[in-house]
Amino acid sequence: MTSPERPCLGLIGYGAFGRLTARHLSAWFEVAAYDPAVSEGDAHAVLTDLTTAAACPVVVLAVPVEALEDTLSAIRPHLAPDALVIDVGSVKVKPALAMDAALPEGVRIVGAHPLFGPQSGKDGIVGLRIAVCPVREAKDARRVAAFCRHALKLKVFQVTPEDHDREAAVVQGLTHLIARVLLNMEPLPTRMTTASFERLMQAVDMVRHDSPAVFRAIERDNPFAAEVRDRFFALADQARHDVDEL
Amino acid sequence: MTSPERPCLGLIGYGAFGRLTARHLSAWFEVAAYDPAVSEGDAHAVLTDLTTAAACPVVVLAVPVEALEDTLSAIRPHLAPDALVIDVGSVKVKPALAMDAALPEGVRIVGAHPLFGPQSGKDGIVGLRIAVCPVREAKDARRVAAFCRHALKLKVFQVTPEDHDREAAVVQGLTHLIARVLLNMEPLPTRMTTASFERLMQAVDMVRHDSPAVFRAIERDNPFAAEVRDRFFALADQARHDVDEL
Repeated sequence: MTSPERPCLGLIGYGAFGRLTARHLSAWFEVAAYDPAVSEGDAHAVLTDLTTAAACPVVVLAVPVEALEDTLSAIRPHLAPDALVIDVGSVKVKPALAMDAALPEGVRIVGAHPLFGPQSGKDGIVGLRIAVCPVREAKDARRVAAFCRHALKLKVFQVTPEDHDREAAVVQGLTHLIARVLLNMEPLPTRMTTASFERLMQAVDMVRHDSPAVFRAIERDNPFAAEVRDRFFALADQARHDVDEL
Repeated sequence: MTSPERPCLGLIGYGAFGRLTARHLSAWFEVAAYDPAVSEGDAHAVLTDLTTAAACPVVVLAVPVEALEDTLSAIRPHLAPDALVIDVGSVKVKPALAMDAALPEGVRIVGAHPLFGPQSGKDGIVGLRIAVCPVREAKDARRVAAFCRHALKLKVFQVTPEDHDREAAVVQGLTHLIARVLLNMEPLPTRMTTASFERLMQAVDMVRHDSPAVFRAIERDNPFAAEVRDRFFALADQARHDVDEL
């Protein structure tokens, strides 16, 4: 699968998600990763400095959403004039606005949200889902989408950042909120469980090790998350009342 | 599998769970089912009247927990002096007390809670779980447990009704409560879903068609359900507060 002349891909951020990214992109790109908290590369990426990583023709930002603005300021002076910059955060509206505001004209920008993580993608990512959002030119998003579909065999959804965040507010907002409550109830029974309860606990296990920054991005940095939470809590209050009336 | 001389088993209640019961017991018993709302038998049970069903050496009560007391009054005059009576409700403390109070001395009583239903058991029940609770003689519960283990190949938990209800208050109480809230939020996204959200929705789908009587039994007739709900709602309030502070 490895091409003899792989183009360079700068990967800013080499945490759990950065490593998953490198694992699946290293067949297609020479991955040059930068992460101030990481000191050693591996089979999938060479660790380098920010300047070198940011100068690659493709730059992937695998940093927490809340660290994006500082990252953009740091890479901006080093980007190629027509670099393709892609963020992979869990929300898309806020990063799209930040990237469009911070990066020079000419730089191509695409938002991507792989709907999987180190846990759900640990046995391979073929058939898993990714949202791809245009930020500047639609054709750049189409190219990224085509690569995800054909090279990575992902199921691709091309949507606006707004449409993405509206759905993610429910899909991720609810999952992480419910998981947070259930994690705080532990220890939970493991013996006389039902199939339904086991699915619930599998859902919890898949987000159990997500970082607090992921939780903040999903619950705070998605402009639609608050209204979904309000609706969930209103219906929970209603359910509580219904049960008291049984 | 069908024995030439199958003993008679009276099945009171021939709803969705009664049918699942008959499907798996008809290899071992001649199932005589009684249900005033059902007019036709099938390959697994002969429909009969209450008197006939109640007179069988084994009587299984597959009625809603809230209908149990009336059912006990109705069958009581027709039971054999040493009949084995088994309820299969989702809670065990309340039915155990009701059966012990209502049924003549000499009648053997066991509580059982199959931790599956028509949905989760639709592709077979081998390896699925059942709780078996002694109500009068411990040896009767042991016999029922042995049958479930060896004949039905179930995973059996022999526990007291109290221990059962304490765990079920969490396992079923939480699942049905969360499912109720999520069902009230429908339509929910089906497109850009994560693996975690899909597990959550699978959990919901497994209880989606449970009757309101099942919900009432789980949330109202389990003596420990209210304190689990209180804890869940307190932690939900805490999570809500935490998110507002992010």
